[in-house]
This record gives sequence, structure tokens and C-alpha cells, in this order.
Amino acid sequence: MSEYLPGLAGVPATKSNISNIDGEKGILSYRGYPIEELAKNSTFEETCLLLLDGRLPTAAELSDFDEQLRDNRQVKYHIRNLMKTLPESGHPMEMLQTAVACLGMFYPGNECLTGADSCQDLDYIHNMTVKIIARMGTFVAMWEHIRNGYDPILPRHDLPYAENFLYMLNGKEPDPLLARIMDVCLILHAEHTINASTFSVLVNGSTLASPMSVIAAAIAALSGPLHGGANQKVLEMLKEIGTPDRAAAYVDKKLANKEVIWGMGHREYKTKDPRAKILQGLMAEFMADRGGNLNPMFEVAKEVEKVCEDRLAKKGVYANVDFYSGLLYSEMGIPADQFTAIFAIARSAGWLAHWREQLSDNRIFRPTQMYTGEPVRKYVPINKR
Amino acid sequence: MSEYLPGLAGVPATKSNISNIDGEKGILSYRGYPIEELAKNSTFEETCLLLLDGRLPTAAELSDFDEQLRDNRQVKYHIRNLMKTLPESGHPMEMLQTAVACLGMFYPGNECLTGADSCQDLDYIHNMTVKIIARMGTFVAMWEHIRNGYDPILPRHDLPYAENFLYMLNGKEPDPLLARIMDVCLILHAEHTINASTFSVLVNGSTLASPMSVIAAAIAALSGPLHGGANQKVLEMLKEIGTPDRAAAYVDKKLANKEVIWGMGHREYKTKDPRAKILQGLMAEFMADRGGNLNPMFEVAKEVEKVCEDRLAKKGVYANVDFYSGLLYSEMGIPADQFTAIFAIARSAGWLAHWREQLSDNRIFRPTQMYTGEPVRKYVPINKR
Repeated sequence: MSEYLPGLAGVPATKSNISNIDGEKGILSYRGYPIEELAKNSTFEETCLLLLDGRLPTAAELSDFDEQLRDNRQVKYHIRNLMKTLPESGHPMEMLQTAVACLGMFYPGNECLTGADSCQDLDYIHNMTVKIIARMGTFVAMWEHIRNGYDPILPRHDLPYAENFLYMLNGKEPDPLLARIMDVCLILHAEHTINASTFSVLVNGSTLASPMSVIAAAIAALSGPLHGGANQKVLEMLKEIGTPDRAAAYVDKKLANKEVIWGMGHREYKTKDPRAKILQGLMAEFMADRGGNLNPMFEVAKEVEKVCEDRLAKKGVYANVDFYSGLLYSEMGIPADQFTAIFAIARSAGWLAHWREQLSDNRIFRPTQMYTGEPVRKYVPINKR
Repeated sequence: MSEYLPGLAGVPATKSNISNIDGEKGILSYRGYPIEELAKNSTFEETCLLLLDGRLPTAAELSDFDEQLRDNRQVKYHIRNLMKTLPESGHPMEMLQTAVACLGMFYPGNECLTGADSCQDLDYIHNMTVKIIARMGTFVAMWEHIRNGYDPILPRHDLPYAENFLYMLNGKEPDPLLARIMDVCLILHAEHTINASTFSVLVNGSTLASPMSVIAAAIAALSGPLHGGANQKVLEMLKEIGTPDRAAAYVDKKLANKEVIWGMGHREYKTKDPRAKILQGLMAEFMADRGGNLNPMFEVAKEVEKVCEDRLAKKGVYANVDFYSGLLYSEMGIPADQFTAIFAIARSAGWLAHWREQLSDNRIFRPTQMYTGEPVRKYVPINKR
């Protein structure tokens, strides 16, 4: 038996072509393309296709895929009615898990995945992938209205993914800078090698469950506070600090108590998270665009970052992607408990790329355990216990 | 980096006290108690508590737990309305994943699981465990009526778990032998060490997601045809064979083509699956009770088993638990596509025991990958592809 490593830390669970992290140099690449180049030149739609197919699409392929996504934005009224049965106070991630899980009942067909050699019905895989990615944004935006007692805003066919998402959320077309920031946020969150939720895709997908079941399960993993919930926590932390002058005392107290400072540091990077650098640039652009007219949390965030850099940069701990994304989403008028759901919209692309890769060389996950329990013993009748 | 083993076969993913398999001797034990003794002496309720708490309960503890389960059988009308929005043709496992996922929105509180040291809010863990196990049977029975266009039958407080489940399903109290057979089936399926769905519980649970999210995700894993779907497949196979005289030719053709014969063999056992032996005994009892008045599939099954034993016993391949459970459920009037959902009812006990064990010494699962993709490369503008 191999060595037992808690959390399987460092244990290779798969071979993968999809993304790679060079933690020393601070490079994240999707299919070989550094995240900086994708953030600068690509769109979420193109990045999805890159992750799924393994190469940058031609103009015709991209336009075709984009059209498929637009055609699949609408959600059946049955699912709208389902959402209306859910409690308004429920967490958006649990709504999203529920909505994606039920989607599989409307689009069956995973029987085509039976058997090791016939796992590659690429038409089915592609069609289901489009159905899921296209609807993720609609689900999240719908819920924002339904939980507040309003009818959801129908998707528009004439807008790109990020722009349509903000339109469905706010009922008006976003200004171009905010639409671009959202598009970049989706690109940056689309994929990040094998973390708990992507690993969940491999494990659940390896039983040949339906893709909707598999993605709904990954949403469960991402919903956990140790995984996807950090950008929501950042905003809660900034609100708790309240004013810039209280930042230093807050940070020092947390450090003294060895408590988490949300949005700081990342296990995979020894340098600054490359995604954080990109968002920092967009935030500066956004601040310049707005002039002084900014949410007071921005000033608190700047101060927290400055204090943390002073205390932690020498240990290789810097602000990460969650630190900035939460702030930016907040400025777009998005409630903090929706941040992880937006993360899930983006990550559905990476999850589905890993699902497809898993099926291309499938083996069911069945690790083993170190049994540390009682040896075989005799049953004791209830009156003798 | 450790060696790469596809499917993590043989890699220890956890330390566990819950169950153990001795594949050479054909022993399955829960908390040290052999499955034969539990099938003979215990009930599903007692077995749940044994799995969860690690020891056989006193009479007072058992009665208290049983009462809690009975008190939690009812399902809110919001969830009944949710089920009515689902397509009748949808698979019961996807319904179950949806229903369990939404349950978390009605019962929040997983914030109490934050941080490594405070993962052990045992009251929360116990209460959520009861809420889930108690409702699993109700969900499955409700769906059988709702998908056929009828209102579900309300649970009864005066019946034990298995009996109440059959009552909700069929609208009448089951005869005592069938109730006992269902109770034993639930005991036999309640736990089976670290397979794909239980591993999914560890992975998703390690992010501190809500227990409803975690169990809904495990239902996804179990729904896959490589995992929980086998007892449904057994019945489909028997129907395909049709008459006993065609069994030998069918089996020989499958063996010649190296195709699966559903319900035969188990990776973990070199001898006959101990659960299969128990069900075989119950089936004989049931057949004697019914006299000659049996579903014709029983005769087909007996012949398939005889032929397989003749061809495969020398290789250590015998009929497994799925072979008999499908037949027995069928005789109880349960449609084949519900068999895996009944498996899930039972397994929710084991899943929740593993969830609790994971939280008692939690570390987020983050294995690694062997990156086999493109090296870092430069982005190519769309007009140059």
C-alpha cells in the first residue's frame, strides 16, 4: 500500500493537458497560454472553447460556439417554477446545485457513456457542455430576482456572455468597462488545475453519471468555505474593518492570533497570484474611470493590502484573486453571497473540460482506506448493553 | 511526487473506523460487527446509529434516535411543489439529488463547521444527519406517486423505517416478511468502505460544504452506471433473457464477448459477497412463503445463477448483492429505475458516518496532476489561426 497523505496532498490523481501552474514563477496557463495573454486578448466564450477543445478556435468555430451558447441561455418555465419553491433565504450556491441537478432530468442520455471504449460520444459531450455553461449565468441572475420576489429578466440573444449576465442581473446594459471586467473575471476563474471541486468532477464523473449530476456535485464542493467562499468572506472582512485607519490593528490582531486574513496568500503560488495582478490593474482602471466616486470599501481594501504587503510579502504571501474580485463584484451591485455563484459560472468551463478528459481515459475512482477500527466482534443483544 | 495510479487504486485516501472488508474470507463488518449478525439481529435504525456513533446503542438511545427519525419523515410542501415541476420521465436518482440539494436551503447552519478545530459541532452534525436519513425514504416514495400524476402518501409515525417506506410506496402496510426483507436490504446497503460515492463525500465534505450539498453530490456518484446502477441492470438483463432455457446461451455469449454479466462478481471479494448469501437465504424464505406464486423472473434468475456458478465459481466470481436485491425489490412491486434510489436511502447512513469522521480530522482534498499538456506558448490572434 502507498503512503497515507492526508487530503492526498501531492498525490497525482490524474494526467491532464488542461492547465498548469508554475508556482515559483507565478505562471498560470490554460492549454499553454498564459492567463495574462488570455485576459488581454480573449473572451470568456473563446476561453471556454480553448479549455474544452485544447486549441484556440478559428473565427468560424468561435462564432458557431458563441451562437450555441446564446441559443441555450433560456431556461424552461418548469425550472423557473422550481426556483420559486425555494426559500428566499437559501444560499445561491445551494440554489445553483439544485437547478443544475434537476437539469439532467430534462436532458437525459448519459447511457451513451457506458463502457470504457464508448465513453467518447463527443456530440453528446459537447451538447451537454453547451447546455450547462449557457444556463449557469441565467440560473444565477434569475435567482437574484426570484429571491427578491420579482420575475426574472429574460436573457438577450444579442449580447456576449458577460454582458448578458450583467444585463439579466441589473435589468440594464452594463457600461463597457464593467462588462469587460466581468468578462476578464470569468476568464480568470474558468480553470485552476486539480482543486477539490475539479477533483470532485473526476471522482463523480468516473462513475459515468450524467454531466449535470457531476457539475451539480462540483458546485457542492465549491460552496464550502474552505474552497470557493473566500471572495464573499473578503467583503465581509472589509465591512467589519469599516474604515482605513482600523486596517493595521485588524491585520496585526489576526496575525497575532494566527487567524485567516481572507483574500491573502495561495497555496500554489510563491509569488503574487497572476490573476490578482490582472485584477489589480483592472481595478486601477476602474478607479480612474470613476474618479473619486467609489465605494468606501475600496479605501479600506487599499489600506488592508498595503498593511498586509508590509507584514507578509517577505513570506511570499500577497493579495490573491479573491481579494480583488469580491471588491469589483460589489461595485457592480452584486450581493456578496452571489460571488461564489459567479465563480461557479466561470469554473463550469474548466469542470466540463476535465469531465471530458476523464471520460477519454476513464477508470472509476476507488482509493482505499487504512482501517483503524474495531476487529471483528460479536453482536451484543440490546438488553446486555 | 508519488506514483500515478489511475483511479487511485490501492492509494489510501483516509483512515477510517467505520467498516472493513476482508475479501479473502468474505467478511464485511460495520464497526467490527459482521454483516450476518446485523442482518439477523439488528434493524436499519440501530445500524444507522452504530455506523454514526461507533457502538451499539442502549435501548434508550435507540428509542430516542428512532423517535427523531419518525419526527423528521415529513417533507415541506414547498419541496412537494418542487417535485411537481420535475419531468415525469426524469430518473429518480436525479430527482433525489435535486431534492437533497434543495433541502440545505431550508436548513442552513454549516457556518458552524468553519476552521479545523471547530469542525465538531456534534449537535449540528447529528441533527442534520437525522434530517437527511429520515427524508430519503420519503423523497423516493413521494416521487413514485408524483411522477405518475398522484399526490404522495404521507408518512406514518407509527411504523419503523422500512415498513413506513413500503407503506408510502404502495399505500398499504407490507406483509411482515417483505418489511423484514426491506429492512435487511437497507442494513446490507448502508455502508461499504471507500467506494466512489463515499470518496465523493470525503472530497466534497472536506471543503466544509453543507451536509445536504455533500450527500446530494454523493447521490450523483452513486447514480453512475459503473457504481450504483447495477441492480437495475440485473432486472433489465433478466427481462432480456426472458425464459430459463435461454440463460446458458446468453451467459456464454457474454463471456465469449468479454461483456459484463450484471450482478456477478465484486472487486473486493474473492469469495461470495457475504451480502449476497444473506439475500439468497431471504429469497429462499420468500419463495417458500409464496409457494409457486412467483414472478417468472425468479426462474430465469435461478438458472442464470446456476450457469454462472458453473462457468465462473472457479475464478472466484459469484452472484453479488445487486443480483438478488433487484429481484426482491421487483417482487415488492418497485419499478427497476427506483432500485438505485433505494440503495441511496440505505447508503445515506454510511455517507453521513464518513462525513462526520472526515470533519473530526479534516484536511481539504487537493491532490495534484501530472501535467502532460502544451508548454507555455504565445497567444495567436484570431485572424492568424
